[in-house]
Amino acid sequence: MTRVYLDNNATTIVDPKVYDVMSPFFCQMYGNPNSLHSFGSETHPALRTAMNQLYKGLNASDDDDIIVTSCATESNNWVLKAVYFDKILNGDKNHIIISEVEHPAIYSTCKWLETLGVKVTYLPVNHDGIVEAHTVKDFITDKTALVSIMWANNETGAIFPIKEIAQICKEKNVLFHTDGVQAVGKIKVDVQDVEVDFLSFSAHKFHGPKGVGGLYIKNSQELSALLHGGEHMGGRRSGTLNVAGIVGMGLAMELANDAIEYENKEVRRLRDKLEDALLQIPKTFVVTSRDKRTPNTMLISIKGVEGEAMLWDLNKAGIAASTGSACASEDLEANPVLMAVGADKELAHTAIRLSLSRFTTEDEIDYTIDVFKKAVIRLREISGSYAE
Amino acid sequence: MTRVYLDNNATTIVDPKVYDVMSPFFCQMYGNPNSLHSFGSETHPALRTAMNQLYKGLNASDDDDIIVTSCATESNNWVLKAVYFDKILNGDKNHIIISEVEHPAIYSTCKWLETLGVKVTYLPVNHDGIVEAHTVKDFITDKTALVSIMWANNETGAIFPIKEIAQICKEKNVLFHTDGVQAVGKIKVDVQDVEVDFLSFSAHKFHGPKGVGGLYIKNSQELSALLHGGEHMGGRRSGTLNVAGIVGMGLAMELANDAIEYENKEVRRLRDKLEDALLQIPKTFVVTSRDKRTPNTMLISIKGVEGEAMLWDLNKAGIAASTGSACASEDLEANPVLMAVGADKELAHTAIRLSLSRFTTEDEIDYTIDVFKKAVIRLREISGSYAE
Repeated sequence: MTRVYLDNNATTIVDPKVYDVMSPFFCQMYGNPNSLHSFGSETHPALRTAMNQLYKGLNASDDDDIIVTSCATESNNWVLKAVYFDKILNGDKNHIIISEVEHPAIYSTCKWLETLGVKVTYLPVNHDGIVEAHTVKDFITDKTALVSIMWANNETGAIFPIKEIAQICKEKNVLFHTDGVQAVGKIKVDVQDVEVDFLSFSAHKFHGPKGVGGLYIKNSQELSALLHGGEHMGGRRSGTLNVAGIVGMGLAMELANDAIEYENKEVRRLRDKLEDALLQIPKTFVVTSRDKRTPNTMLISIKGVEGEAMLWDLNKAGIAASTGSACASEDLEANPVLMAVGADKELAHTAIRLSLSRFTTEDEIDYTIDVFKKAVIRLREISGSYAE
Repeated sequence: MTRVYLDNNATTIVDPKVYDVMSPFFCQMYGNPNSLHSFGSETHPALRTAMNQLYKGLNASDDDDIIVTSCATESNNWVLKAVYFDKILNGDKNHIIISEVEHPAIYSTCKWLETLGVKVTYLPVNHDGIVEAHTVKDFITDKTALVSIMWANNETGAIFPIKEIAQICKEKNVLFHTDGVQAVGKIKVDVQDVEVDFLSFSAHKFHGPKGVGGLYIKNSQELSALLHGGEHMGGRRSGTLNVAGIVGMGLAMELANDAIEYENKEVRRLRDKLEDALLQIPKTFVVTSRDKRTPNTMLISIKGVEGEAMLWDLNKAGIAASTGSACASEDLEANPVLMAVGADKELAHTAIRLSLSRFTTEDEIDYTIDVFKKAVIRLREISGSYAE
């Protein structure tokens, strides 16, 4: 049976080269890197290589820290909660700014911080699904401890003006964190060019393994630990090092960076081909201008076609898509990003996200176009809510 | 070259059967389990199997929760910090009791909680390296929010009277957490027999992969999240599920439980053989009575032989041992557990931990006895601090 995976914003296939480099660290080189004997030290060269690949991938400097975590959810929780302890509970600030379309790892953490008395501003997005830089500027006060705005949105692929927002935060002397999960590996992420204080990323979004991610920390600045303990990672993040995961993430970062041009030419071409074809279906629209999106993503609304019904038809034909964030895909509420960009409630129930990767082939796109069009015709025929 | 791994309390080889069951979840069944399509749902049977293996392994009931985390350090941090938020910051308690030989993931977290105003009692251990149950009872007050005492010590293998401590906490209506990292897979851990509220464990200590662990929660009782976000694990621990890690940890738990009798007979026999032989060396002693230890562990002091020098000689002969917790093994301070059981400072610098596993062979033990004895002779000859 034909199977086409177009849900790469939820997770990605592990690149077979990444799997190969991880494999020896389960049953052969299984030592604890913190041990003094050869079973420990024989893991060090691969770990050093991996850390170098991460530094090079983000263009981090030797003065910066990149700390390995278990996922971007941990990285995001870490920054927000550390800023709470460092700047709010033990400081004179009380305010955090995020966008209203942040990933739940940011959004839910802020909802919880509100129960502790933190003031949180949820900035609205414009019709392109992004927060404009001047909006951030307008809401920063002398009580603002942190701004956290995603680099690219998981559902629409919308790329936020992170360079401008970083510049504003620097001028205002406010810490700036960006959830880079949907940007790293898809577009150029250069922390020398874009001066963020903190950046979260996750290996499994760029063809690395699940269960490992990281946090970039500019100038190795202080940040209370989220995981206290045995002084791993220079005392910044405790827990026995996940050697296989780190080694895999390092190579995945290198391979993703090597493929950035391919991603922005070939993956984009395939995405655009798919998008052009699907937009020929009457009464469809795609959120966010094409040039303002990551090259692999489209979120399309099809009037009169319930998103879940569409997913089901695609799935029967072996095509994996999503109605939005995988984190919330088991709940059938209206798509919050579509609501945020001003779509009406009906449209917000008709969104399908298709996200490609460098493993997506032209044949898969042709097949998807064919299946998608037939599914829309079928579903509109049986739909009560659509009349042409 | 002969290589003998006797540092199984630091980390363990991944059982090849565990590696085999993990392998398909990198490049074949790589979907996000939260996705609605077949790439997601095809991971569910293996995840269900793994969760059943974890429940069965601990003899947890359907009313209990077992939440997968990234490691026991996360589980330990989670319990302590959640209790801080739930019972101290937002409650009327202010006190936590731990032992003075807890793992750094507990100890350092408590040191940090003290900076937030929490009162922490660090209970002393007796000459066998354990906290006695009546000591716990003596220190519980009506302000005590949590008692956290390890099930077995990482350095000595000393098994704590967890059943009695759990009973005392239940009577006093105080939450009880145990760091079960060094117990699970080595001795019987049955949460019906020993009624703890929370129990932390880590896959890589029982021949599972690094980067995955868990927290058992009795009666699924409430506990603020450490990682907020996308409502994974019933909203208790967010972050994309580490499918390979979970599947591996499940089988590792089952295999470890299947091997519990072997561990307590054969591994114990090999450990005792090694211990008997090494204790023939004059002026040596082993901490904690043999019947009060996990079957795989011995911590031996050799008068006049610096622990690090001994490690180095063993390592040159291909034998991996430790001077204590791997988490602190890069620092050359006196062994804190030895200090706690009342050893003098010189002895505390001469401790070598040897920890076996079900993969340890009789030949390896014979080889180790031979190498160890020769190393002691050599090092005592060049040592200024030892005169027979």
